[in-house]
Amino acid sequence: MKNFKEIKGGITAPKGFLASGVVSGIKKSGNKDVALIYSENLAQVAGVFTTNQCAASSVILSKENCKGGSAQAIIVNSGNANACTGDRGYQDSKAMIGQVAESLDLEDNQVVLSSTGIIGEFLEMEKIKVGIDKAVTSLSSQGGRDAAEAIMTTDTYAKELALEIMIGNKVVKLGGIAKGSGMIEPNMATMLGFITTDIAINSQLLKEALKTAVNKSFNKITVDGDQSTNDMVSILANGQAENNQITEKNEQYYKFVEALNYLCTYLAQQIVRDGEGATKFVEIEVKGALSSESAEKAAKKIANSNLVKTAIFGEDPNWGRIIAAVGACGVELDLSKIEIKINDLLLLAKNQEVIKHSSEEKSKLLKEKDIKVEVDLNLGSVSEVVWTCDLSYKYVEINGEYHT
Amino acid sequence: MKNFKEIKGGITAPKGFLASGVVSGIKKSGNKDVALIYSENLAQVAGVFTTNQCAASSVILSKENCKGGSAQAIIVNSGNANACTGDRGYQDSKAMIGQVAESLDLEDNQVVLSSTGIIGEFLEMEKIKVGIDKAVTSLSSQGGRDAAEAIMTTDTYAKELALEIMIGNKVVKLGGIAKGSGMIEPNMATMLGFITTDIAINSQLLKEALKTAVNKSFNKITVDGDQSTNDMVSILANGQAENNQITEKNEQYYKFVEALNYLCTYLAQQIVRDGEGATKFVEIEVKGALSSESAEKAAKKIANSNLVKTAIFGEDPNWGRIIAAVGACGVELDLSKIEIKINDLLLLAKNQEVIKHSSEEKSKLLKEKDIKVEVDLNLGSVSEVVWTCDLSYKYVEINGEYHT
Repeated sequence: MKNFKEIKGGITAPKGFLASGVVSGIKKSGNKDVALIYSENLAQVAGVFTTNQCAASSVILSKENCKGGSAQAIIVNSGNANACTGDRGYQDSKAMIGQVAESLDLEDNQVVLSSTGIIGEFLEMEKIKVGIDKAVTSLSSQGGRDAAEAIMTTDTYAKELALEIMIGNKVVKLGGIAKGSGMIEPNMATMLGFITTDIAINSQLLKEALKTAVNKSFNKITVDGDQSTNDMVSILANGQAENNQITEKNEQYYKFVEALNYLCTYLAQQIVRDGEGATKFVEIEVKGALSSESAEKAAKKIANSNLVKTAIFGEDPNWGRIIAAVGACGVELDLSKIEIKINDLLLLAKNQEVIKHSSEEKSKLLKEKDIKVEVDLNLGSVSEVVWTCDLSYKYVEINGEYHT
Repeated sequence: MKNFKEIKGGITAPKGFLASGVVSGIKKSGNKDVALIYSENLAQVAGVFTTNQCAASSVILSKENCKGGSAQAIIVNSGNANACTGDRGYQDSKAMIGQVAESLDLEDNQVVLSSTGIIGEFLEMEKIKVGIDKAVTSLSSQGGRDAAEAIMTTDTYAKELALEIMIGNKVVKLGGIAKGSGMIEPNMATMLGFITTDIAINSQLLKEALKTAVNKSFNKITVDGDQSTNDMVSILANGQAENNQITEKNEQYYKFVEALNYLCTYLAQQIVRDGEGATKFVEIEVKGALSSESAEKAAKKIANSNLVKTAIFGEDPNWGRIIAAVGACGVELDLSKIEIKINDLLLLAKNQEVIKHSSEEKSKLLKEKDIKVEVDLNLGSVSEVVWTCDLSYKYVEINGEYHT
């Protein structure tokens, strides 16, 4: 039984959070491109950041500010990543933080900054300045959806969710927004996700909870194996639910983690579903592994194989490409023990026994949008799941025609 | 100055080699699908094989036979990889070797076997049997081209080259054929390549020479980062040039290695040029690295980035995707030192200085078929080159519509 329920809304569902999403004009499309998330009081903050060594200045600054353990605002611009822009880019990032802090009467280190979009272009700071002003004056308890829209780049729809749990006799809420949809690969938050909650929890446990949840969700997805310079997941917890502050790993902590996992998993899966050009949502489970690391390594090798991804796009249950990926992933294997299923249909049994199916059955197998690939190594008892999408003409179109 | 010259022909250019390529009927297209290469006398043999743990039985058997150091024939079928086919597949591979050995009056362990095509299907052995018989009776000193055609799968053209060098006062010849064109990734001969030479050289040095050449050629190419279960490069050296046998690493050895490198590099590059759906040939050089390993790791990360590959397909010099790949590759970096050039045009200078070019200049930059990407890490003095192709609609079509 789940200890939480879904409720309407997103990041402004929890008490004491305001948000906005406005048009600054950075995006040529004229779509919303500046989002602001604000807590009425100083909140606990935690963040998980890209491990890309060419991380943008927004990542470097936000990492620093999250270390402090408290923050009150998150400012995000889309359309320009302000990455690889040297000292001028760094100063621009500082100016964005400074402007938000001044407008909202905060310290600079109480603001988290995030940028997403093209790499290597300077921000048009006049537009940004106007955008931030608009975002501050537009802050509203109904602004969650606008913020969700303003962080989008090649996403085709906004991604948000809100949950409710009972902590003691208090109603606690969580809200989240996220964006994808190319350059998505795990080993860190390779996308943007922002979470708000009114739970009262100490800084250390908030950090642990976020790390746990991100590892089980955002770090399990891959669209194209590329890792961005800018991505992060950040959470603000402002305590307005007035539960007794969580300061140890008790039942209430795990209840919160369960809900946070669900929220992050939902958002992560939405990112894959809306992956660039995706026509299929693919869950890849590697079972019977000797360790969690080897299961995940094998699953990600399959998930990142262009040959597997194009076969799924072509609705062809080509398990040969799956086993070739498994064989190339570098984990301990015994070929004679491997079993492969697609959507519960056994295709390869132990001892390399190929199970024959009618071509009608095979062609029906991948018609659905949701595909499950199951590889059992039959060596140990550990299993891991990753989520990915197929590789379509549309992916090539989006990325071949997105011009700098 | 080169110590070799190109001559007409392929694997039957060296003295004492016969070859054939025939139709057995395995390929539904009705194209040639069985190739045979034969040396009139017992030759020194060497091979490099896939490291895929799900290697096909042909790989396992040929590895064993190459260990012996001498062989006289190479039999290849295309259209069916006979991989993941268990004991029956293994027995079928043995039967192919046995039939060739019997027909040509050889020992079983003097025959190298290679299969390429679909994974997980049993060979139609009646067709194969007839095919091998035809291949034996068709052996000819003019048969090199037929063999080159018979090993093709999704290749759009046959790949062959022959070279001539002087060793002492003897004319020595080398010939080679190769096939691609998906599932091409380094860390081993991830494709098929067969080389003949009439040089006299001992077994140990032949093995070393092949390993050196493969590392500088076939292991530097990548089409889609996928590694096959079946791939190998194999060489026969029959000594008919009558040079004094090479038994030490003297000037003549290095002359031979130089020619062998050139031959392998030519064939490897041809594989990339004919990569599935390729419209561009891309050379990626990472310079100024601290080690050869880190230079190659960075270069391959760039080469395997779908975002980089689609940008090149779209003729967009999007160096942001290049630096994101470099940042994610896990080698030592200093972002402020990195420089990026495309076709000799500096796009990113040190200290993250973005060099602006007119959009006309940028749009012209990638019009050519041959693209050079240069990343200078400016940390050390080591550089490595890899070759790849772009990712086009056609790749998705070929791999999405190739049905099992």
